[in-house]
Amino acid sequence: MNSADLASGPCPLGRAAGIFGDRWTLLIMRNATLGATRFEQFRTGLGIADNILSNRLGKLVDAGVLTKEPYEDGNRIRSHYRITQAGVALRPVLEALAAWGHTYANPAEPTIAVRIVHLPCGLPTADGSHCDVCDTGITNEDAAWVMPWVSEEPIPLATAAATAAPDGN
Amino acid sequence: MNSADLASGPCPLGRAAGIFGDRWTLLIMRNATLGATRFEQFRTGLGIADNILSNRLGKLVDAGVLTKEPYEDGNRIRSHYRITQAGVALRPVLEALAAWGHTYANPAEPTIAVRIVHLPCGLPTADGSHCDVCDTGITNEDAAWVMPWVSEEPIPLATAAATAAPDGN
Repeated sequence: MNSADLASGPCPLGRAAGIFGDRWTLLIMRNATLGATRFEQFRTGLGIADNILSNRLGKLVDAGVLTKEPYEDGNRIRSHYRITQAGVALRPVLEALAAWGHTYANPAEPTIAVRIVHLPCGLPTADGSHCDVCDTGITNEDAAWVMPWVSEEPIPLATAAATAAPDGN
Repeated sequence: MNSADLASGPCPLGRAAGIFGDRWTLLIMRNATLGATRFEQFRTGLGIADNILSNRLGKLVDAGVLTKEPYEDGNRIRSHYRITQAGVALRPVLEALAAWGHTYANPAEPTIAVRIVHLPCGLPTADGSHCDVCDTGITNEDAAWVMPWVSEEPIPLATAAATAAPDGN
């Protein structure tokens, strides 16, 4: 059984693991969720080798969670990678991983928890899906992450590209 | 940056990705959650090579999500791998991955969703953390997964080993 099998079997968890069961793809999706779109941003943010980053970005475009789009950079046309609706929908997975990691990963060196903030009221939420203060569900547009080891400023999450159809890299 | 760096950085999501950012570890944890404990059960259930399985089980013991314990098999003492409290706590990650995979992975070949059932009432739940019918939170002991492509029978989830301290493989 290889990753192609995992990505096509009957188990939806197995299929998701076939795509995200890779340390770099999870971190690329974390950074894309936080607004990274350019190759250089991912490379700098992750300290990842060019060839590995290029490979993983291609796989994520194939999986439909990122879409490769041209943009103008002065006189040049470059490509960047925008998160799609399917990519935005990975937020509960990333938030559950962050919560697990805060409590259980390497407890000898505690981490600071990621706080999920409801932007309209600015208050942290228990699970990222519902604001108990406003008594409302939390959409991706209304959610932000506070990563205190970076800054106490809430980081709004990236919104999905309007054209989410993958172009096959 | 390698997986050791990822497992020790300040980002709890990065730390979790350093442990579970591997397609086999996610599937081993899926099967452990469903009650697998013996090397042979994981090998048969996953179709994984012995050396890879041995390596990943060792890493999961080191990470404290499985614990290696002796058991009597006739006249022989063998080892099996029991899920720990930290491993049981991975359930929200696995359920979020399954939900994502059902909706977004390879939509040309739809999967059947995993249903999360509250065992005392036997009814499916919206998100695995709360039973709206009983109006109660759902503990791991009261949760079961229905994987309809295997059986319509709810599969109770494994409970944590009483001694959760990893023995360093």
